[in-house]
Amino acid sequence: MKSDLEQLLGERGLDGLWVTGAAQNNPAMVYFTGAALITGADLLVRRGAPPVLFHHLMERDAAAATGLKTITYQRYPMQPLLREAGGDRVRAAALRAARMLAEVGLTSGRVAICGQVEIGPVWGALNALTGLLPGLELVGEGDDSVLMQARATKDPAEVERIRQVGKITLAVVDELLNYLTTRPLRGESLLDQDGSPLRMGAVKEKIELWLLERGLDVPEGTIFSIGRAAGIPHSSGDPSDPLVLGKTLLLDIFPAERRGGYFFDFTRTWCLGYAPEAVQDLYEQVEGVYSQVRARAFPGSAGGVLQDLACDLFESRGHATLRTDPQTESGYVHGLGHGVGLNIHEAPWLTGAAPGADILRVGSVVTLEPGLYYPEREMGVRLEDTLLVDETGAVPLLEYPKELVLPVPG
Amino acid sequence: MKSDLEQLLGERGLDGLWVTGAAQNNPAMVYFTGAALITGADLLVRRGAPPVLFHHLMERDAAAATGLKTITYQRYPMQPLLREAGGDRVRAAALRAARMLAEVGLTSGRVAICGQVEIGPVWGALNALTGLLPGLELVGEGDDSVLMQARATKDPAEVERIRQVGKITLAVVDELLNYLTTRPLRGESLLDQDGSPLRMGAVKEKIELWLLERGLDVPEGTIFSIGRAAGIPHSSGDPSDPLVLGKTLLLDIFPAERRGGYFFDFTRTWCLGYAPEAVQDLYEQVEGVYSQVRARAFPGSAGGVLQDLACDLFESRGHATLRTDPQTESGYVHGLGHGVGLNIHEAPWLTGAAPGADILRVGSVVTLEPGLYYPEREMGVRLEDTLLVDETGAVPLLEYPKELVLPVPG
Repeated sequence: MKSDLEQLLGERGLDGLWVTGAAQNNPAMVYFTGAALITGADLLVRRGAPPVLFHHLMERDAAAATGLKTITYQRYPMQPLLREAGGDRVRAAALRAARMLAEVGLTSGRVAICGQVEIGPVWGALNALTGLLPGLELVGEGDDSVLMQARATKDPAEVERIRQVGKITLAVVDELLNYLTTRPLRGESLLDQDGSPLRMGAVKEKIELWLLERGLDVPEGTIFSIGRAAGIPHSSGDPSDPLVLGKTLLLDIFPAERRGGYFFDFTRTWCLGYAPEAVQDLYEQVEGVYSQVRARAFPGSAGGVLQDLACDLFESRGHATLRTDPQTESGYVHGLGHGVGLNIHEAPWLTGAAPGADILRVGSVVTLEPGLYYPEREMGVRLEDTLLVDETGAVPLLEYPKELVLPVPG
Repeated sequence: MKSDLEQLLGERGLDGLWVTGAAQNNPAMVYFTGAALITGADLLVRRGAPPVLFHHLMERDAAAATGLKTITYQRYPMQPLLREAGGDRVRAAALRAARMLAEVGLTSGRVAICGQVEIGPVWGALNALTGLLPGLELVGEGDDSVLMQARATKDPAEVERIRQVGKITLAVVDELLNYLTTRPLRGESLLDQDGSPLRMGAVKEKIELWLLERGLDVPEGTIFSIGRAAGIPHSSGDPSDPLVLGKTLLLDIFPAERRGGYFFDFTRTWCLGYAPEAVQDLYEQVEGVYSQVRARAFPGSAGGVLQDLACDLFESRGHATLRTDPQTESGYVHGLGHGVGLNIHEAPWLTGAAPGADILRVGSVVTLEPGLYYPEREMGVRLEDTLLVDETGAVPLLEYPKELVLPVPG
């Protein structure tokens, strides 16, 4: 969490951190500022000193509301910088950055840089800057950056924000179930208001609108799929599929706070009206694996070990897994889970593919989402909660029933 | 427009263009792909050859739907690259990029780079790449980039998309006016359903929800302000302000296609019930300047000249402008307009501050938005349309009445 940042910088031999870009839809900046209406900013952290937020004068109210120490860009007026740069705006931006770095004592040493930006002008300015400050090494880290490592555990305020997103999400799931179980029926098809078969696309639009109405955003979409499409984990569903009885109906819903805030991630699979025996059987197996893996998830557990456990359990029931056959499209063909925060997918990774970035710790917020996928048999089952790791183990942030069959009228 | 790109590359001595990042919320990429569900891609354009889109295998359907020539990243498998890079993921990404550049014949020469990215891993990979390919110069251009210059004029398909966003926007404005003119009244206050005074924040939420329901997105927010707040052009409005009669009520609405597509931009100012004489007078002056400036906007006109004309006209009526007093907060304290496209603000600039990037051409889509602001007198008036420049001049993409007074019941 944020309070680990100083130590992490030290461990990596970094003298500072430079976060750049807007304070919306920019996880690295939002982590410090909250999702604020700040269209362009730079946050400089020198190891051992509090962060400083540089911002435009017009956005001073939003900047002040972050509670950070702030300095306006207008302290370094653009006109003299442009003259010094011979009219070259990219070079003038580099000159201004050098002054900002000097302000916090970071004109030399190793500074990690991060943030969502338009690469063109930034590439130009950073190259000019490293020419101006030969003692400065700007470090571009990968997925295992110092900031991603800090963000891999959440403090109580972050957990509360994720839980709030979850409460709204589950209210929308309630609304969906109420809607589905009160539709009229003809044969095995649910009907729309005009008497035509109800289609998945129309219901998915409702789901997303219910989220938007309640103040959430849907930046990564929604998976709402039935039958064969539910058997393909990366399919977001075919909007023209009708809602019919007895097929696996899968909702994977992962909204976020507006302007790029915290996510919540949740999946249930249902059958409308009745469940064929084969689906009932798959469902119980997935639920069993969920419970057994969860019972083995503690602070210190490695995500790779939990993924292996899930593979062991599924393989013992005769299912192919990506471990036995990396090409398989049937069986357990999905990762076990992932961290959730300002990115929908972040560390710790429960996939087995990220050694070192997969250890559960107190404060980790992760999904567990085992599933079984059989597209050729037109079925797929996934169950997913978002859980908080505490001293006792991995505990769902919110409880929600796991019940396969959704009763329909008549 | 896109068909100018070849020539623009030649004029700038560029051998190619490299667009990187997702195909959503990334204007440079969306310009080529449309707002598609492609989470990570690279588009390489070698001068004289068609663009090539590199994408993940999982997103092949969305990639194919762009109509571009496509190649999957899987052509360069990560495992051997990681071995070659000694396990360093950032360096492996650079090795893969070098192979992609070789695929299109761009391992040397001058290549402009652009696109929305997380700077950390990209900074690392691009530095490694320039080490691998010493004959390659990656050019980071500023706001006047070759792509922004191409985008400064729109082809007919782009104009049609902007017009469609406009049609939906104006339907929402109609809905707002219908809503406002049918509210019950107590004294000079509009009332909410529960009989309490209707507040600006509640109405703004409705406006944004009406946009979302109709399939648009509101990535840059909405300005809905009354009285003193309407007199401060950068204020988005105070949500607690009540809707009262006789005050300037300003709506500046600029939604976009979902996932980072084309914007439309529109402003009207109204008075509920009646307009004080001073407001009526301001309104007529702003409307007059709008008409006179529009009558002088033709292909070849410079935005700076039009901004000067607007200043001349306002100053002749005794108003301060930013030209006479750069610090003034009263009078004409706003730019005249800007291009509209995949960014809400882009070239051509009608502000006087962007010589060279301010020329109107056939296919330019720009706003004209003169206004007068008097916060201390609790009033502000702005009128704005989005216009297409054609051979005859600057023509509103959509007509909408300019009427100051909104009648209220009783």
